[in-house]
Amino acid sequence: MRIEVICTGDEVLTGKIVNTNFSYITQKLEDVGLSVRWETTVGDDREDLLLAFRLAGERADAVIVNGGLGPTVDDLSQEIAAKAAGVELVLSEEWLSKMQEYFARRSRVMPPNNTKQAMLPAGAEVLDNPIGTACGFAVDIGKARFFFTPGVPRELRRMLEEQIIPRLLKKSGMQAAIFLKRFHSYGIGESHADALLAGVAELVPDGTVKLGFRAHYPQLETKLTVRGRDMDDVRRKLAPVEQEVRKRLGNFILAEDDHTLEGVVLEALKSISATLTVVEMFTSGQIAARSAHLPGAERVFRRGIVARDLGEACGAVGIDPGSFPEGVTRETAEAVARAARRYTGSTHALAVLIEIDEGADRLEFGGTICIAIATAENVVSRRSRVVGGHDWVRLGATEMGLDCLRRYLKGLPVHERIDFEKIEDPVTRDR
Amino acid sequence: MRIEVICTGDEVLTGKIVNTNFSYITQKLEDVGLSVRWETTVGDDREDLLLAFRLAGERADAVIVNGGLGPTVDDLSQEIAAKAAGVELVLSEEWLSKMQEYFARRSRVMPPNNTKQAMLPAGAEVLDNPIGTACGFAVDIGKARFFFTPGVPRELRRMLEEQIIPRLLKKSGMQAAIFLKRFHSYGIGESHADALLAGVAELVPDGTVKLGFRAHYPQLETKLTVRGRDMDDVRRKLAPVEQEVRKRLGNFILAEDDHTLEGVVLEALKSISATLTVVEMFTSGQIAARSAHLPGAERVFRRGIVARDLGEACGAVGIDPGSFPEGVTRETAEAVARAARRYTGSTHALAVLIEIDEGADRLEFGGTICIAIATAENVVSRRSRVVGGHDWVRLGATEMGLDCLRRYLKGLPVHERIDFEKIEDPVTRDR
Repeated sequence: MRIEVICTGDEVLTGKIVNTNFSYITQKLEDVGLSVRWETTVGDDREDLLLAFRLAGERADAVIVNGGLGPTVDDLSQEIAAKAAGVELVLSEEWLSKMQEYFARRSRVMPPNNTKQAMLPAGAEVLDNPIGTACGFAVDIGKARFFFTPGVPRELRRMLEEQIIPRLLKKSGMQAAIFLKRFHSYGIGESHADALLAGVAELVPDGTVKLGFRAHYPQLETKLTVRGRDMDDVRRKLAPVEQEVRKRLGNFILAEDDHTLEGVVLEALKSISATLTVVEMFTSGQIAARSAHLPGAERVFRRGIVARDLGEACGAVGIDPGSFPEGVTRETAEAVARAARRYTGSTHALAVLIEIDEGADRLEFGGTICIAIATAENVVSRRSRVVGGHDWVRLGATEMGLDCLRRYLKGLPVHERIDFEKIEDPVTRDR
Repeated sequence: MRIEVICTGDEVLTGKIVNTNFSYITQKLEDVGLSVRWETTVGDDREDLLLAFRLAGERADAVIVNGGLGPTVDDLSQEIAAKAAGVELVLSEEWLSKMQEYFARRSRVMPPNNTKQAMLPAGAEVLDNPIGTACGFAVDIGKARFFFTPGVPRELRRMLEEQIIPRLLKKSGMQAAIFLKRFHSYGIGESHADALLAGVAELVPDGTVKLGFRAHYPQLETKLTVRGRDMDDVRRKLAPVEQEVRKRLGNFILAEDDHTLEGVVLEALKSISATLTVVEMFTSGQIAARSAHLPGAERVFRRGIVARDLGEACGAVGIDPGSFPEGVTRETAEAVARAARRYTGSTHALAVLIEIDEGADRLEFGGTICIAIATAENVVSRRSRVVGGHDWVRLGATEMGLDCLRRYLKGLPVHERIDFEKIEDPVTRDR
């Protein structure tokens, strides 16, 4: 089945907004085993819209159109859809009363120009939008079934998932039950993960399990798409594969599905009624900014300290910087973490100290990262060297700091070699 | 002149990466007074690429193609360009020797498969890529001039600005000198700014000055595009308009052109050899994360403190939280800022205290923000109420904190009403 997407609107065409709706649509379809073959973006222009609809209607079996369903004069999707389908626009009494209810529930009177949103091509099938006034609809143009969706991202998302994907799956004759399992990892590059997971999808021989990746440094997302007769069938197929993925990626999996690294760390701390202090240098507040605002963090996150200078970091936790003539080392990080915990009275402290290279930002620019975690019982630490420019080092150190804390809280080894670090000569490493 | 863009590659078509190259291209063209009329995205597929090239070649005068110039088998742009143009692929000795030099300068031997990157359609014009091995080129297909560009963003950017835009301007017959002047502001919404600036572009009556906006909350970018015979002509036209924009937007302009709010604040502190301490609550490190990592910040940024709890924030700067039974008020913020300065020995201290609403995140979710700045000489403060959900409040407070500091350092009033705050009743406001 050939699927195309048409994105409409001057804001997207002129680059005032980045077209994240398209990447959302196409990814969501990939996740259920469907593929977009062609995408077209046109502005709020009658002639171009008509041409885009006609061309897609000649080529495709299904077309998703995004945007142009609003109440203003530059919203043209219904009008041009009717023209391309060769039918009239007619008032949908069904949608009009839905809109009136929508406004009534919010104690507002519906402005007259909203009526335009209930004008649909004759014979169109309504696609419900439970959270907005833009009416989704489906209509045939050429040889394709066209699905019209709103430009507001949350309305699009809901309509795509609840209304359109089930229709596309039915049309494609694909099995109805589909499930996407996701694993988030840190420390393994995409090609390395691909090699580690060779053959896992083939544990289910009928080809209904598909393995995929999405890299967004520093994290990697590993995706398993599973198709089956029903959810029981899907679960039965998924079980051995997901178990194998967990085994092979092991300690590197930091969270699954909708969970995040910072969320997992926070949950682990909460579950033991722990409190946390974080000391940062070149990550300059990014570790705190990732975690301290989350719901529930107000009871866990005790204090964050940012200092660009080791002396200042020591001063902030009440120790003498003169005791560390060697600068940023594992021992220094351990002493800072220990002192931070004592100083603020938290149960846990994380210190992420970084000595960055001298000079201007460049691809070879690097930093030496020393991370320590202290509790009343013990202190653990690791050292790493990362290169790749200012932002790369900073992002990498933020992730590594949080991931070390996750590993510690889960009883895993804090130091495990990752793909993004540079191997140092033994003399330097042992410093 | 009708311009189209064709984006190629499975990674973009499947949504593995968001298509920021397109928004970059189209915005850059808008900035020089050109417009993209139509955009097409296709995968690494011979049939679809050929069709996309042919269709665009029938409709457009100029087409920019992005991606597919790499050395691997799925990079098909040159091959399909030659086919669509009806010519052979020939080896460009010019580009081959450039690539060999490129590798030699990096002390590496050119891998044989890179030779493919020097195969161009016969008669193609080379578009230089000084920072990569992908060779840009221009060739006629149908009635359009096609410009082929690399997918690597920094290579695309350089080629677009240095090679393609001058050619497009020449082809369009537009005046050669073009300049984009940008103002960044915080606190004024787009429609408000539009009203404030009514008529400024008309100060130059020949229509060669164009006013535009780009909103990215919390900041607004105001853009003036000026066309002229030469740069002297452009400067002469721009002078009265930019002066008027500065006058009308006044204190709300936080930076111009490539400068940023955090950069301006850092420069102002540096110029008086000042040092800074920042105390944050719900912004949870975002103010530090915006500023403390910048080059030069290591001498200015003394210490950042994050605490979700007012008591903890007070404790971190050595004052007794029991003195503030009213919680987060202007007076509390002033006391915390004063204490932070004394405690860390910095010349300046910024305290951004926030009391957030109870309950789950929602659109009406808000926060009361109290900001204070202390020096040895004095202390200033402001209070504000912002609603719009968790992230909105956090982003707004981060910006407001940095902007108050900018205003203070520039001798401007720290408290000026902004469009994004909710007016409170006088009793609450005076608390």
